[in-house]
Amino acid sequence: MPSFTVYKGSKDGSVKQTKTERPELSADDVLVKITASGLCGTDLHYRNQDMGLGHEGVGIVEAVGPQAKYMKKGDRVGWGYEHNSCEHCQQCLRGNETFCPERAMYGMADLDQGSMASHGVWREAFLFPIPDGLSDEHAAPLQCGGATVFGALHQYGTQANETIGVMGVGGLGHLAIQYAAKMGCKVVVLSGTDSKKEEAMKLGAHEFVATKGAKELKVSRPIDRLLVTTSAQPQWDLIIPTLAPNAIIYPLSVAGGDFTIPYMPSLFNGIRVIFSVVASRYIHQRMLDFAALHQIKPIIEKFPMTEEGITTAMNKLDAGDMRYRAVIVPQ
Amino acid sequence: MPSFTVYKGSKDGSVKQTKTERPELSADDVLVKITASGLCGTDLHYRNQDMGLGHEGVGIVEAVGPQAKYMKKGDRVGWGYEHNSCEHCQQCLRGNETFCPERAMYGMADLDQGSMASHGVWREAFLFPIPDGLSDEHAAPLQCGGATVFGALHQYGTQANETIGVMGVGGLGHLAIQYAAKMGCKVVVLSGTDSKKEEAMKLGAHEFVATKGAKELKVSRPIDRLLVTTSAQPQWDLIIPTLAPNAIIYPLSVAGGDFTIPYMPSLFNGIRVIFSVVASRYIHQRMLDFAALHQIKPIIEKFPMTEEGITTAMNKLDAGDMRYRAVIVPQ
Repeated sequence: MPSFTVYKGSKDGSVKQTKTERPELSADDVLVKITASGLCGTDLHYRNQDMGLGHEGVGIVEAVGPQAKYMKKGDRVGWGYEHNSCEHCQQCLRGNETFCPERAMYGMADLDQGSMASHGVWREAFLFPIPDGLSDEHAAPLQCGGATVFGALHQYGTQANETIGVMGVGGLGHLAIQYAAKMGCKVVVLSGTDSKKEEAMKLGAHEFVATKGAKELKVSRPIDRLLVTTSAQPQWDLIIPTLAPNAIIYPLSVAGGDFTIPYMPSLFNGIRVIFSVVASRYIHQRMLDFAALHQIKPIIEKFPMTEEGITTAMNKLDAGDMRYRAVIVPQ
Repeated sequence: MPSFTVYKGSKDGSVKQTKTERPELSADDVLVKITASGLCGTDLHYRNQDMGLGHEGVGIVEAVGPQAKYMKKGDRVGWGYEHNSCEHCQQCLRGNETFCPERAMYGMADLDQGSMASHGVWREAFLFPIPDGLSDEHAAPLQCGGATVFGALHQYGTQANETIGVMGVGGLGHLAIQYAAKMGCKVVVLSGTDSKKEEAMKLGAHEFVATKGAKELKVSRPIDRLLVTTSAQPQWDLIIPTLAPNAIIYPLSVAGGDFTIPYMPSLFNGIRVIFSVVASRYIHQRMLDFAALHQIKPIIEKFPMTEEGITTAMNKLDAGDMRYRAVIVPQ
């Protein structure tokens, strides 16, 4: 019976090292020895709950169940937000299993384990081979952060030469700049101040617009798709004039309350708003392959996989000081 | 020089019969003798302005300018919200001229004339042949109402067998039911009370849901696309559970203020919101041909084209009593 270390949240928000025991591997179960875990904004939402933390996992296969067919001991694999789905509903059958009514998602299922752990047992069907050329540490933040931004662009048919606006340069934003640039798009970054300009341009941005205190925003080409990665909702009266007709706005952050946008300016410009979450498996795999092909890599800060290491990383992310994605690695 | 009668709005909201004079026909100008004009909700917004009223016009060609190529005296033609565009910008070149920055739209250009008039002079390039099998009176309300609902469905790739929700049974809604049903879709009508149920089912709806006072709405199949034709914004906590994953919401009415929708339920369901206005010309023509093919007809109430007739129709529409679209016809 696999038995391993798991880091969990707790009522008072402190991170607790615990043990999890799982039954013998059955069906297409895969036992993964974890080598790297990303830390995502949504993990902060769960630090007050008694559940295994982390959903950007990478590791090495240690053992496989009797029905596993594609993975074997020693393979490098990763996983993200989704762990399981019914595989027979309309959504699953059309490759849209992130919307399966029985989907098993982080925070909803498999609460006894996570990617901040020594090991995990996950279904082979929801694990992804890590392509050569992507290190474990760089592959980890792609499992949710990369999937979220690439998924939004890929699923809704982004074409080369479009103008992609990236609002916010953080965990998601700094990946979005790279993916969009490598898709052959013109990338316009909208950020509060100029402080991240140099880094954004190095990542592939073509244009950088500081928004704080601006009365009007100037972009050289109207934005076809705007990825909103900031948690604060944009000041639409400033943003809408930068958008092309029929522009797509993707609200990507996880936020409570309402999404609100002025009605008539949206109507006159034929604006589209698409709420988009992570990525289905076929898109997730394409995202990893695309990253390997173009050497898209998150900029990471490493923390040790201990109660203290994880806590330090969480506090830094919470304070908005992470540049740009934490990766938790075993000692 | 063409000289003709035009009905205009005025400061106090009364309708005034006036005369308009236009220069000799030049370029691809077409002089149309008007035989029917629809009355649309947006006309009410303009009744307080000194401008020609009406943008759902149908008539007979009386004369053409020297560069007109496709239309000749005696042809039946119609026109809608858009009268002109630059024909060389990106939007025009890709058949999306309703978003041309130089578009001439009702209420913004050609204020000296409208479809509530004896005649009008319009560019051949923005006139549409009326197919046989559609009467002038039935074709008129399609020029904006039909274009709005058909355009939203057609432009964004509606397929047969999808479930289309139609919110509100009025000028737009009663056309949306017919278009969606004839596209091979399942049509679910959401309306305040049961009062329009029988009529909605006759128009082709498969299911009718009364929303007033309901705590939960039951639909037999999740809605893939929801056309919101009511001016009041929907009660989203009631509506969202009826939507399929990735459902598209089309806010079609013209309203001030903000469009607001709960953030997390939209994110979890991958909701898409598409603001859609009328239709580009190639879609407008398809809309008319589709109506003729399937005998899609508005249910109309006729009013005489006089100051009094137009005023009576406007007041009835404003009171919410029109069933379902007024057509103003010459005496």
